[in-house]
Amino acid sequence: MKMIDLNCDLGESFGAYKLGCDEEVIPLITSANIACGFHAGDPVTMAKTVKLACEAGIQLGAHPGFPDLLGFGRRDIKVTPAEAKAYVQYQTGALQAFASEYGVKLQHVKAHGNLYNMAGRDHALAKAICEAIASVSEDLIILALAGSEMISAAREVGIRAASEVFADRAYEENGALVARSKEGSMITDEEEAAARVLRMVTEGKVTAITGKDIDIKADSVCVHGDNPKAVAFVEKLRKSLTDGGAEIKPLISFI
Amino acid sequence: MKMIDLNCDLGESFGAYKLGCDEEVIPLITSANIACGFHAGDPVTMAKTVKLACEAGIQLGAHPGFPDLLGFGRRDIKVTPAEAKAYVQYQTGALQAFASEYGVKLQHVKAHGNLYNMAGRDHALAKAICEAIASVSEDLIILALAGSEMISAAREVGIRAASEVFADRAYEENGALVARSKEGSMITDEEEAAARVLRMVTEGKVTAITGKDIDIKADSVCVHGDNPKAVAFVEKLRKSLTDGGAEIKPLISFI
Amino acid sequence: MKMIDLNCDLGESFGAYKLGCDEEVIPLITSANIACGFHAGDPVTMAKTVKLACEAGIQLGAHPGFPDLLGFGRRDIKVTPAEAKAYVQYQTGALQAFASEYGVKLQHVKAHGNLYNMAGRDHALAKAICEAIASVSEDLIILALAGSEMISAAREVGIRAASEVFADRAYEENGALVARSKEGSMITDEEEAAARVLRMVTEGKVTAITGKDIDIKADSVCVHGDNPKAVAFVEKLRKSLTDGGAEIKPLISFI
Amino acid sequence: MKMIDLNCDLGESFGAYKLGCDEEVIPLITSANIACGFHAGDPVTMAKTVKLACEAGIQLGAHPGFPDLLGFGRRDIKVTPAEAKAYVQYQTGALQAFASEYGVKLQHVKAHGNLYNMAGRDHALAKAICEAIASVSEDLIILALAGSEMISAAREVGIRAASEVFADRAYEENGALVARSKEGSMITDEEEAAARVLRMVTEGKVTAITGKDIDIKADSVCVHGDNPKAVAFVEKLRKSLTDGGAEIKPLISFI
Repeated sequence: MKMIDLNCDLGESFGAYKLGCDEEVIPLITSANIACGFHAGDPVTMAKTVKLACEAGIQLGAHPGFPDLLGFGRRDIKVTPAEAKAYVQYQTGALQAFASEYGVKLQHVKAHGNLYNMAGRDHALAKAICEAIASVSEDLIILALAGSEMISAAREVGIRAASEVFADRAYEENGALVARSKEGSMITDEEEAAARVLRMVTEGKVTAITGKDIDIKADSVCVHGDNPKAVAFVEKLRKSLTDGGAEIKPLISFI
Repeated sequence: MKMIDLNCDLGESFGAYKLGCDEEVIPLITSANIACGFHAGDPVTMAKTVKLACEAGIQLGAHPGFPDLLGFGRRDIKVTPAEAKAYVQYQTGALQAFASEYGVKLQHVKAHGNLYNMAGRDHALAKAICEAIASVSEDLIILALAGSEMISAAREVGIRAASEVFADRAYEENGALVARSKEGSMITDEEEAAARVLRMVTEGKVTAITGKDIDIKADSVCVHGDNPKAVAFVEKLRKSLTDGGAEIKPLISFI
Repeated sequence: MKMIDLNCDLGESFGAYKLGCDEEVIPLITSANIACGFHAGDPVTMAKTVKLACEAGIQLGAHPGFPDLLGFGRRDIKVTPAEAKAYVQYQTGALQAFASEYGVKLQHVKAHGNLYNMAGRDHALAKAICEAIASVSEDLIILALAGSEMISAAREVGIRAASEVFADRAYEENGALVARSKEGSMITDEEEAAARVLRMVTEGKVTAITGKDIDIKADSVCVHGDNPKAVAFVEKLRKSLTDGGAEIKPLISFI
Repeated sequence: MKMIDLNCDLGESFGAYKLGCDEEVIPLITSANIACGFHAGDPVTMAKTVKLACEAGIQLGAHPGFPDLLGFGRRDIKVTPAEAKAYVQYQTGALQAFASEYGVKLQHVKAHGNLYNMAGRDHALAKAICEAIASVSEDLIILALAGSEMISAAREVGIRAASEVFADRAYEENGALVARSKEGSMITDEEEAAARVLRMVTEGKVTAITGKDIDIKADSVCVHGDNPKAVAFVEKLRKSLTDGGAEIKPLISFI
């Protein structure tokens, strides 16, 4: 039976600012990507989020981003590989400390926002991030865009990689995500989105924006917990996957 | 033979800003307190400092401070115990990640600046910090002002504590440091400073500002690496201690 | 006819984080206290908020706070008077720049959170803030707690001061706000809150928590726009004030 | 007689961190570019720097940069024009507040680091910055790379522009600065550097890295005050300019 992980960004509140429906989405996912204070999150929020996730028994991952709270990590910042490496080490270590309180080891690391995007295309950056992860613990799995530079860099560095797919995004023929600015980049129909994911998981195929079928590796689906509608979609997606013969399991079980 | 540790604050540069003579002082000390990005330090600086310290074979400690780069952690901020706990977990974990690259475990944690001072007087704050340290690793030693609330909180929480003394500061009869604003608070004569330290280490006594001898426990002496003069004093202090029959060793050897 | 200003904290969003119902409350108030980037707010949010307020024709004020986004400016930070002065100059000037785009001069400055509270009790801090305001423009009005050190410092420095009262807070006999931690500190009954404000405005009296009537000067009432319920209360308060014979006008009309 | 301004970046210290020989270079320059807290500088430093510059009678300018203290504003950050506009308004207004204490109006604005570089090539970004400047005051002069997009954007927006040249940098044939990574990008011989500047000022010509003479407009020369050697060069440059028949005057005198 094909296994699939469901991951979601959590712990994105900051101080007095609240973001996301963490409590609602936690029971529906298997892996949490927890913000580490650079683009979102703060130590108190991290402590709360780790507690919630540990109590629910889901797996924890660090979600390191650019040091850009103002831009929520969603702006390109031209950092050097050495800077990226140090930023990922710092944030991953910080999150591990909160998990240690519960005797838990982090399962994975997923870069956030434009650090994820830039490293997906830039091999030197991708390699620096993988080296950072390996330096913290060789047991950590990197969760990254299927087919991206991050996946090949992980192989090079010698850490396990998990390929992430998106329910709500269209793909180019080369497996890249269609830029949000292009027409047709978002899959807005929920039935279609769920069906595409199921096919990615069970057949390893998806229809690119050009109409052509392409191969895609799906170890984890990125879901959202920003609002009640997003949370409701995760329930549908779970049903669709289970009904379609996939088993929803954390990465640690099968990567 | 009485053993004594020499600790120094390191890694206080930030981005383009340089502070301290880290390379000069490292060969003279046994334990490094490394800034963790809140009051000073940044991930790239932490990476460099950890590398230097590991190559020199000295012990590493986290030096967590208030989130106040602007004030260098030297202003009272009325944080809650829960905030203090999360800040210490975060910073300690962040530093541990850099040490892991060299297969090294942190030896200790020493709170910085006014977090050190406030927690030295406030039991709830002290306990929160000790709980933070214990949650990251029960092997970590807290390094704190001799006779302060931090020392008693460590006992309560069940972690090892090391008592710190200062060469350049006068003491009140109750063992507190004389406030810098008071006359006579600083010991400016280097011979006198070195002699006082030797007596603290070998006899467990120091003459308070009132003239009365008091008991003091000295596991580690705080030295400075801010400037060449400070570094030269560390050399004198080492000679004075060694000549006086003390052995200079890291905390891990005897606490 | 007695005139009264209604002021509200606005522009407290930050980057991706949204806070407050600014658009709903703007039509109901006469003076906006706009966050300036230290405890809340960011340049893009400030630009938007100034635009909204200018289009609505209400008066603008700077709402400078401690440099503590993590604590939303609601933690005591022991800054020096010189630091407080520079922080207020900086933030007030920053906000004035956005107002200049609309040919508008700021009406007032109101310190935020614990800077407001600390300066209300500490004359040196209060004076530094008033000097900061005077240095930016001698036409600026300081809006501060009725009867506080800020009001007397303003007189000393030679700038105009407006006395602020609170609808939802109980008062001590000496005119101080009852600490939130004490029982009875909050006036939760909306009718009672509105009636108390009307009496403060028209009679200059309020019943302290001890039961004794005290004198109070009311130039402006602090209202909230955090949520729909708070906004609805402002409508009630306006009706109560107007029906009771007060005229709702910005500070600039009568201070 | 040809007039020329000498500008220097000042006020780049931050909290406990000191940078630059501001006091030494101030007597030698006519215009100060003062850091505004985003890439360097802090409110207390700004207050001190403005005081020094005003007492020396030199002209003040804002030196707004990216919100990136960690990178000293020297990393590309892909901000939108609306973000850039708001950042420049904010920082310029903040600095103006300190100048107001001395009854002084800012003379100019010069973007810092990679904001300067990116805006020099990107017309939309350049225009947003010029609009920001115009919105604060139409009397402000923009100081920008000779021949860059900033100069043409200023014309479009209707503010005065001053063209900046560099003593220590080689030029491409199109007037752009040769990238620092290329061989020959830096003019390290001081005699040559001074001679090149004099020719730029008096003849409006400079020899590009290709050997070809190109036209260049020189209203202001960027000098450095980072270290004693840099300060000594400014003295040489002043002598060379004066001996060569140029008059050293602030921008306000002739732009």
